[in-house]
Amino acid sequence: MQTASRTLDAREIQKWDDEADVVVVGLGCAGACAAIEAVDAGAEVLVLERAGGGGGTSAMSGGVIYLGGGTPVQEKCGFDDSPDEMFEYLMAACGPGPDEAKLRLFCERSVEHYHWLVDQGVPFKAKFYPEPGMEPPTDDGLIFSGSEDAWPFDRIARPAPRGHKAQAEGAAGGFLMQRLLAAVDRVGARVRANVRASALVVEPDGRVVGVAASEQRERRAFRARCGVVLTAGGFVRDREMLRRYAPALLACNMPLGCDGDDGCGIRMGMAAGADAVRMEAASISLPLYPPKRLMKGILVNRHGQRFLNEDAYYGRSGEFALLRQEGRVHLIIDDATYVRNHAGMEISAVGESVEELEREIGLPEASLQQTVELYNRNARRGSDPVFHKSPDYLTPLEHPPYGAIDCSTERAIYAVFTLGGLRTRTSGEVLTPDGDPIPGLYAAGRTTSGLAAQGYSSGLSLADASFFGRAAGRAAAGA
Amino acid sequence: MQTASRTLDAREIQKWDDEADVVVVGLGCAGACAAIEAVDAGAEVLVLERAGGGGGTSAMSGGVIYLGGGTPVQEKCGFDDSPDEMFEYLMAACGPGPDEAKLRLFCERSVEHYHWLVDQGVPFKAKFYPEPGMEPPTDDGLIFSGSEDAWPFDRIARPAPRGHKAQAEGAAGGFLMQRLLAAVDRVGARVRANVRASALVVEPDGRVVGVAASEQRERRAFRARCGVVLTAGGFVRDREMLRRYAPALLACNMPLGCDGDDGCGIRMGMAAGADAVRMEAASISLPLYPPKRLMKGILVNRHGQRFLNEDAYYGRSGEFALLRQEGRVHLIIDDATYVRNHAGMEISAVGESVEELEREIGLPEASLQQTVELYNRNARRGSDPVFHKSPDYLTPLEHPPYGAIDCSTERAIYAVFTLGGLRTRTSGEVLTPDGDPIPGLYAAGRTTSGLAAQGYSSGLSLADASFFGRAAGRAAAGA
Repeated sequence: MQTASRTLDAREIQKWDDEADVVVVGLGCAGACAAIEAVDAGAEVLVLERAGGGGGTSAMSGGVIYLGGGTPVQEKCGFDDSPDEMFEYLMAACGPGPDEAKLRLFCERSVEHYHWLVDQGVPFKAKFYPEPGMEPPTDDGLIFSGSEDAWPFDRIARPAPRGHKAQAEGAAGGFLMQRLLAAVDRVGARVRANVRASALVVEPDGRVVGVAASEQRERRAFRARCGVVLTAGGFVRDREMLRRYAPALLACNMPLGCDGDDGCGIRMGMAAGADAVRMEAASISLPLYPPKRLMKGILVNRHGQRFLNEDAYYGRSGEFALLRQEGRVHLIIDDATYVRNHAGMEISAVGESVEELEREIGLPEASLQQTVELYNRNARRGSDPVFHKSPDYLTPLEHPPYGAIDCSTERAIYAVFTLGGLRTRTSGEVLTPDGDPIPGLYAAGRTTSGLAAQGYSSGLSLADASFFGRAAGRAAAGA
Repeated sequence: MQTASRTLDAREIQKWDDEADVVVVGLGCAGACAAIEAVDAGAEVLVLERAGGGGGTSAMSGGVIYLGGGTPVQEKCGFDDSPDEMFEYLMAACGPGPDEAKLRLFCERSVEHYHWLVDQGVPFKAKFYPEPGMEPPTDDGLIFSGSEDAWPFDRIARPAPRGHKAQAEGAAGGFLMQRLLAAVDRVGARVRANVRASALVVEPDGRVVGVAASEQRERRAFRARCGVVLTAGGFVRDREMLRRYAPALLACNMPLGCDGDDGCGIRMGMAAGADAVRMEAASISLPLYPPKRLMKGILVNRHGQRFLNEDAYYGRSGEFALLRQEGRVHLIIDDATYVRNHAGMEISAVGESVEELEREIGLPEASLQQTVELYNRNARRGSDPVFHKSPDYLTPLEHPPYGAIDCSTERAIYAVFTLGGLRTRTSGEVLTPDGDPIPGLYAAGRTTSGLAAQGYSSGLSLADASFFGRAAGRAAAGA
């Protein structure tokens, strides 16, 4: 059920239940960073969180933050990087139509942002973990978390790993948020949990001056003397919004988000006149790897054709599979390349020959045979002139039996979260469709359209949340 | 330059310059039909048009209206159709995520709507023109204007042609609008031309009560006693809005729209709190035909692969080419199948063999050869098991020289207009993100997200405009 998201006229407020300079809505990574920075800028801060405590979707994540341009971790691990190389990669990978101003600022200040995170108590171990994909099982701090070293991006910018994982084993989102929540507490921002924000309180002239909410079924009104920061997540858990703005995503069977990702922050902003942009965009992951060795197989569509270099980031494979191939895709491997997929994706068809496998899957006659034949011929020469997969993953598929993993939306994992949201300046100011800032209103994280306008790399959401959460907190405090 | 689209507080209006029960903004097909029906419902109507006279983009169009379910023209031409078959086709072709309620109502009332158009003075000749694509050069009244008879739609619903062209030779949009404008005049709706609407006038409680505009550089305010109907076109002519909501469309070199398609109607609605949905969606046509005989060639991507049945509607080819193949596509033909393309698309590469042509175009070695080989093998058997092109267009490509038409965005025509816009009920009531109607505000045509949420067939925009324009006019009059 959708929470109401009309605005409330400030003149209807009889009494404020609480107040602060800055009121932050939602205590995930973006909210925490906004709160810390707002306090640092001299503001008194009140954070409203609808769950029993902070963390949100950030705490459920792998804890990988996209950072680069020459961080100490990159340097110690022996990787050269620069803000320019990072910018070139992200401009190419986050399109079409990425927000150039946000990308530029983020790349220029990424090293500084790294140090800020460390200062908040978030350590990163300077060790590179070579198997990309989901977060490492170890506490190693650096991974390739996008398509930096895969075609065509490896020709656009010098590849460097930029996924920085907070130093905890396995999924480190919980650890990351523990540290950030401790910092929120340490700086003295007040947190009210179990408070569900429902509407912005707006003066007749359009200025946002507070938040209407419910707390234990009681209506509450919280005054924001300087500004409100919306950091309430995306809308992947609201099927009605998906239907309206991004219906293709309804086919995905694994929404990545907590209950709060019901779009309430976005709708509260829109009700106050905010523009919402790129609402169709999403991160769509098809976790074919780890282990990356499975990428020695080939991904084929229902026409028996390959459709991308299989060593691309799995968010790219998922996006292509769902949006370009109607979610009807198989991974083809042979006996020599097969290895168990970590996400539990199983062999669904087997054949003693490619021809038999093709028939077994129901692909058009000769289509898969032809694809494998050309692939093998080139792989024997160590090249993939058709899709440019790295030689590291090129092996002719010639050891029967052959197998297929059904990667259709009915059978495979499609992990999805939304990337569209409120349109903001790099300062976090929320804009109307005319491009005017709404006085008193700021936002960050998945409530906004951020660094990744469409194409995604892992770690960009925590980067958005932390970097632009900080900016929004500062701006709200200074307003 | 964008026109301002903030709202104007009704209390700031010193005096109204003119008034009516219903004020319609924009006199294209949607505005004309809204005006006629509003008068018919008993309202006094004032239409504001920014150009020197009515017509808009509708007058520049081919004048093809999507109608079906058993119209007299369909029946006289010997085609069986029913509302259910029409609905099944449109549900499949207008997705993902079409507006089921709009499609259902439109299909059920399509025959009645046909008669209404005839009653307004818009005749249709009951003659089927067999060459699909752009409007016929003749005054024939019926064509296939979508993918009804192409895979996979031919298996989803019984194919019937539904493109109804107003009875004039060639592009009939001008004729259609002449007739509709004459009807507007006849019923007594008043038209003020050279008036540029800039903002909705809104009461403090949110009710829309008028339109602020400029006329010969003078500010004007027009009062709407019952309702305002926004029928001001889409946003294909506003590059800033394209960048923000639909950046992939910036690569298209032929925007289909008049100056008025700068999104002003959408922005005026959003400023009053309206939701805008499916803003990334567009009709993207790659006019490979007519003549349809060119579809005996094969369309290949930069990997040398086919990617759809070439006999699909050219709006489907264009959408797939741009959004799924990065706009890098060639049409391959041989000496026996070549014929001059009506849109002036020329041969860009020639080879005495497929291998030579492949090299000439710069496709990966063996890729095109393999594609042609499999295609030819199947075509000789009269089938296309890989992409299901109709046998009518299946001929092996085996007569050198071979040629390629470069259909990349740099070389070929990509004709585009936007399909996203204000969210409306079937009545034309404009909705907020919460799903509440905005009192006094209605919209239709390309200012709204309509029948085609994404996938398109020719004639759906004039169908949207005329059918839902009528609904909006009636609703506004009765408010």
